[in-house]
Amino acid sequence: MDVMQKALELHEEYCGKMEIKARVPLADSYDLSLAYSPGVAAPCVAIEKNPSLVYDYTIKGNFVAVVTDGTAVLGLGDIGPEAALPVMEGKALLLKRFANVDAVPICLNTKNVDEIVQTVKHLAPTFGGINLEDISAPRCFEIEDRLRAECGIPVFHDDQHGTAIVVAAGLINALKLVEKKASEVKVVINGAGAAGIAILRILVQMGFTHILMCDTTGIIYKGRKEGMNPMKESIAHLTNRELQQGHLSDALVDADIFIGVSVANLLTKEHIAAMNNDPIVFALANPNPEITYENAKAWGVRVIGTGRSDYPNQINNVLAFPGVFRGALDVRATDINEAMKIAAVEAIASLVTEAELQEEYIVPKALDERVVGVVAKAVGSAAIDTGVSVLFQQPLTIG
Amino acid sequence: MDVMQKALELHEEYCGKMEIKARVPLADSYDLSLAYSPGVAAPCVAIEKNPSLVYDYTIKGNFVAVVTDGTAVLGLGDIGPEAALPVMEGKALLLKRFANVDAVPICLNTKNVDEIVQTVKHLAPTFGGINLEDISAPRCFEIEDRLRAECGIPVFHDDQHGTAIVVAAGLINALKLVEKKASEVKVVINGAGAAGIAILRILVQMGFTHILMCDTTGIIYKGRKEGMNPMKESIAHLTNRELQQGHLSDALVDADIFIGVSVANLLTKEHIAAMNNDPIVFALANPNPEITYENAKAWGVRVIGTGRSDYPNQINNVLAFPGVFRGALDVRATDINEAMKIAAVEAIASLVTEAELQEEYIVPKALDERVVGVVAKAVGSAAIDTGVSVLFQQPLTIG
Repeated sequence: MDVMQKALELHEEYCGKMEIKARVPLADSYDLSLAYSPGVAAPCVAIEKNPSLVYDYTIKGNFVAVVTDGTAVLGLGDIGPEAALPVMEGKALLLKRFANVDAVPICLNTKNVDEIVQTVKHLAPTFGGINLEDISAPRCFEIEDRLRAECGIPVFHDDQHGTAIVVAAGLINALKLVEKKASEVKVVINGAGAAGIAILRILVQMGFTHILMCDTTGIIYKGRKEGMNPMKESIAHLTNRELQQGHLSDALVDADIFIGVSVANLLTKEHIAAMNNDPIVFALANPNPEITYENAKAWGVRVIGTGRSDYPNQINNVLAFPGVFRGALDVRATDINEAMKIAAVEAIASLVTEAELQEEYIVPKALDERVVGVVAKAVGSAAIDTGVSVLFQQPLTIG
Repeated sequence: MDVMQKALELHEEYCGKMEIKARVPLADSYDLSLAYSPGVAAPCVAIEKNPSLVYDYTIKGNFVAVVTDGTAVLGLGDIGPEAALPVMEGKALLLKRFANVDAVPICLNTKNVDEIVQTVKHLAPTFGGINLEDISAPRCFEIEDRLRAECGIPVFHDDQHGTAIVVAAGLINALKLVEKKASEVKVVINGAGAAGIAILRILVQMGFTHILMCDTTGIIYKGRKEGMNPMKESIAHLTNRELQQGHLSDALVDADIFIGVSVANLLTKEHIAAMNNDPIVFALANPNPEITYENAKAWGVRVIGTGRSDYPNQINNVLAFPGVFRGALDVRATDINEAMKIAAVEAIASLVTEAELQEEYIVPKALDERVVGVVAKAVGSAAIDTGVSVLFQQPLTIG
């Protein structure tokens, strides 16, 4: 694949995709006396007296750590912290490119949940937010939950919530096309990892009531013994009220929506034929989806989403995380809560007007420059409305 | 003090003295496919197979963490991690400004030695080096020793070794002026904290044999009971072979050199009068030295060094740490060992020629652009010669 060779050459040529840049003058000794000793003592003393001034005098309020342990990197699995570094650098660059957030990669040399939580908590004074990335399930759930509770700054696991937000935005618009309602459709999510669980949770909040979730063992149901983990146990009751048992092919009978966050080339012609009319399929396995765009089209899928930029309807996290962090940092949110995520979903969906909406355009393009601002504003407003903004403690009346 | 007000205004105006900058193009989706998904998988896979390629494909080899716990910041003491952030940002900027090293502040939310060591070890895969900063003594000694042993990347506590290197360079040239030899002079170091201990150690390695060290209890001697700690115990035998007891005023009798890393306005006319002919005084307490430049001059001190940029002979760490890191990173050193520090001392001293050498010019100016390159080359060569360079395993014959 040519892009792989080109990418390797780019990484070798630049040897580091990012760098540090001074924002203040550093030409002469007077400049240095302000930016460093002795003048730097002035902001230090001020912050010691009033800790919230750290947001006024330092990078903290715009500084995000992109943290991984390298256990679930892209589709490559547990490749370790060093091999994960190119991805985390890239992610940091996207935060800068799309949202002017200053982010740095932090690849941790431990897979122990307690140690990861402890380490990130120790880092928290420096940063305005934490983006967790490519940490394997189910460990990622506990890590995120504990950090959200204990860090005091926004913590966002993008593989969960970034994906879930964009999937949900796409579904809102896809349902408009097929003229069905969230409360009435049957959804099948295949894959019970970080993304699958987060998608399930956000869909439940948005009023989807009939959801089946499958993993490699088959349909998840409350009380299933095989292939469970604490996370699957805790979400089983959100799905499958009829306690249906069976395999993916059983789940797909009369399903309106299939969301795959699993493995390549899974869906057959028979699977699609068993679905309800106007099937919607988001086949997000990367780089090779659960069903190719061409097959899905040929076999009668009405709306197709993939993770790929070379097909329509790319379900790309970059539509979500830059604006989510921009919004959270702008209002100095202490958390990225469910209301803020839902606000991001609706903001992304809203950018495709009814006039523009069609089978091959249900979400904005990844490079649509409007997205970050609209998402950030919605996320910031939701933070204010839910009382997690330090800067704006009263809901604003925006004139 | 006007510089304090100006510095506060500068920090408020910029709200973060540094930012992240992309080094690769990110204009269109093709650019993104190389810097991020899917192309980024190529360097990830390559690094997983051969971990040393992380130095070829990522920022790691030029990336330094400036790590503190905020316990000994400037002369302000234990002001905590948030209040320390302006200093660490400033330090990171100096590394970029002088040595093109990309550095980020990391202010830790713990003062526990084990936790600090553990946290920095967890961060190590991301970074090419660790600059410890403003961590209080004697904790800083154990933290540095353990990290040097366990991290596999260079670890350098600048408050110790940066100061010691520049002091030693200044002394080499001051001794030339007064025509005395290291092995024959009597040195008094006042202050047994991070800087004092490191100065003592480097002077011993450079052949100074007659050194007395004082703390607030008085002269340190092997077997002293009062006011000791494990570090003072472990260095007592390097000093004071005659087991002299008494106070600073006793120590100074016939001393050739006084090095103060202690408190302001300590030295009296009588102290200076008790010293040997041609006394050398480095009064490095900051911002107010152990003796003012004017008093020292009036009372007969021959060579005076201070920490201040508004007087001659500023003993400024910036002469050392940028070149030390540049040199260590350039040869991919696994440590910054004693030979590399001594090489830095000699390199800095060598930049003042015999023709230029005079009482008011014993070390290069802080902004002397020659310094970083000369120091880096010397440090890198010493790393190669002592077998701690990964890139150059055989001593080079430089033509």
